[in-house]
Amino acid sequence: MERELWKEILQARTRIAPFAHMTPVMTSSSIDRSVGSWCFFKCENFQRTGSFKFRGAVNAIASLPAVARARGVVTHSSGNHGQALALAAREFRIPAFIVIPEDAPRVKLSAAREYGAEVVLCAPTQRAREETARRIAQETGAVFVDSHDDPTVIAGQGTAVLELLEEAGPLDVVLVPIGGGGLASGTVVAVANTSPGTRVIGCEPAGADDAYRSLEEGRRITDFTPRTVADGLRTTLGALNFRIIERFIDTIVRVSDEEIISAMRLIWERMKIVVEPSSAVALAPLLSGGLDMKGKRVGIILTGGNVDLARFFRFLLDGS
Amino acid sequence: MERELWKEILQARTRIAPFAHMTPVMTSSSIDRSVGSWCFFKCENFQRTGSFKFRGAVNAIASLPAVARARGVVTHSSGNHGQALALAAREFRIPAFIVIPEDAPRVKLSAAREYGAEVVLCAPTQRAREETARRIAQETGAVFVDSHDDPTVIAGQGTAVLELLEEAGPLDVVLVPIGGGGLASGTVVAVANTSPGTRVIGCEPAGADDAYRSLEEGRRITDFTPRTVADGLRTTLGALNFRIIERFIDTIVRVSDEEIISAMRLIWERMKIVVEPSSAVALAPLLSGGLDMKGKRVGIILTGGNVDLARFFRFLLDGS
Repeated sequence: MERELWKEILQARTRIAPFAHMTPVMTSSSIDRSVGSWCFFKCENFQRTGSFKFRGAVNAIASLPAVARARGVVTHSSGNHGQALALAAREFRIPAFIVIPEDAPRVKLSAAREYGAEVVLCAPTQRAREETARRIAQETGAVFVDSHDDPTVIAGQGTAVLELLEEAGPLDVVLVPIGGGGLASGTVVAVANTSPGTRVIGCEPAGADDAYRSLEEGRRITDFTPRTVADGLRTTLGALNFRIIERFIDTIVRVSDEEIISAMRLIWERMKIVVEPSSAVALAPLLSGGLDMKGKRVGIILTGGNVDLARFFRFLLDGS
Repeated sequence: MERELWKEILQARTRIAPFAHMTPVMTSSSIDRSVGSWCFFKCENFQRTGSFKFRGAVNAIASLPAVARARGVVTHSSGNHGQALALAAREFRIPAFIVIPEDAPRVKLSAAREYGAEVVLCAPTQRAREETARRIAQETGAVFVDSHDDPTVIAGQGTAVLELLEEAGPLDVVLVPIGGGGLASGTVVAVANTSPGTRVIGCEPAGADDAYRSLEEGRRITDFTPRTVADGLRTTLGALNFRIIERFIDTIVRVSDEEIISAMRLIWERMKIVVEPSSAVALAPLLSGGLDMKGKRVGIILTGGNVDLARFFRFLLDGS
């Protein structure tokens, strides 16, 4: 399986090249001083649609046979994957159907629509989302593209760490956030095949630590209610993702919401870039001391930069 | 005078090279679509100490004769210039005295101290600030470095647009915020001497439009109370700056605080970078329609990224 996936990752590089950005790798001497390591931040907040999800989405569509592809794609995601799939579909000039729960913030709807997708509302339950997506797939022939439990999506996400290793040079460790596990599983396979001496450590919010507990118990935990500010990591670890991560990941560390917010603030203040809470999850364990990487060369994947800024800007204006 | 200044700008490039960052020039296809122009953003938010002010500060210190320099530097500024001068002094291993009004936020004090400066508190009036700085200069022999009304400071700031022109290629117009006028006067002289076909347009908050009114009346307006969210632009236009800007600038446009906040939000959301309100003043007139640059190649100097994020992060944590 990993051999197949590694081949898919190499193919993904070529497939996504015409569409995705080669995002920059940034450093910050001030953060390096704070944590005592050499940190290399892979800035997927600068990726198209504002997150790494575009890599997987565009690779999934590019991997489809032309006839199937022409009928379009469908997914249920009000977040980064939905936006990514919408834009990726537009690039291929095919329809995209994005199923969004009717209680989702309106900005999520308008973002997907802006990228040209057809938004389909459903009841705010996991079951309604899945059934609605299935119905659309049956009615339209659109191909369902899961946000993480899909080899072509995983392969697309695995390209980020390849670019990181090429630009940063040898790394002792790569820190990667875990939600559904698409990015994490792509990352471990890519690292195992290009830089086997590099450890990959998964980072998870304590309030959504299903991957940590799944590894502990040796079976995938699916029955839990996530409670974390890192909205991108509330997804349950996928089945394929679990198998890959279980086999290849070094360890998983957990961080509190306070630690996530502190790390996020440090990134904004010192690096002057906008990242979402999920991104900060990978820096948090270095800051909190939960992970000691003193003197080490550490790669950190900043997953995205989609944050709702409405409140901040309202207060800014009121306070002037 | 301009010939001298242009020579100073060329020298400044060499003088600041070992200390200052060559900041990136970013583009955003989404913002380009919004305004109908080709925008090239010079990202001084990524400059050391988080603003372009470091260029002028380090050039001012580098330009001093060694004996005078060894006695240190002094200024009154609780903002970006103070931090810039503090770090620049540390690079030269000389003392820096930063005079800060006693009612300034504590973060301002700690920022200057973090960069190794000696902070001197004074009463919160312009007169107390000036007198305290003068007293310190007399007592210690430290050289006073004004934040904008100083040829070496102006020359340092003029280096930013040189880098912008080299990276972006020919520009129809450069938009530059005006506060004390240090950046604006350096910019007009640099552009006049390297790209005379490029217009330079100054951008000012409507609530601190002393430069606009000074140009209208043909004399420098100094008696006004600034009221704007763009805290970096509340400074009064300097005497030397007025003479240079009056002669070289194409025109000055004014924008409201609402327009500044909208532009700032667009930059954060679309470009995923943290910029301060003063930076957004240069994009605002394109968005508001106050300035029609359709189809033109527009350089925009994003002056800095120092924003107080405390409230935003407090609300983020409370809302999780």
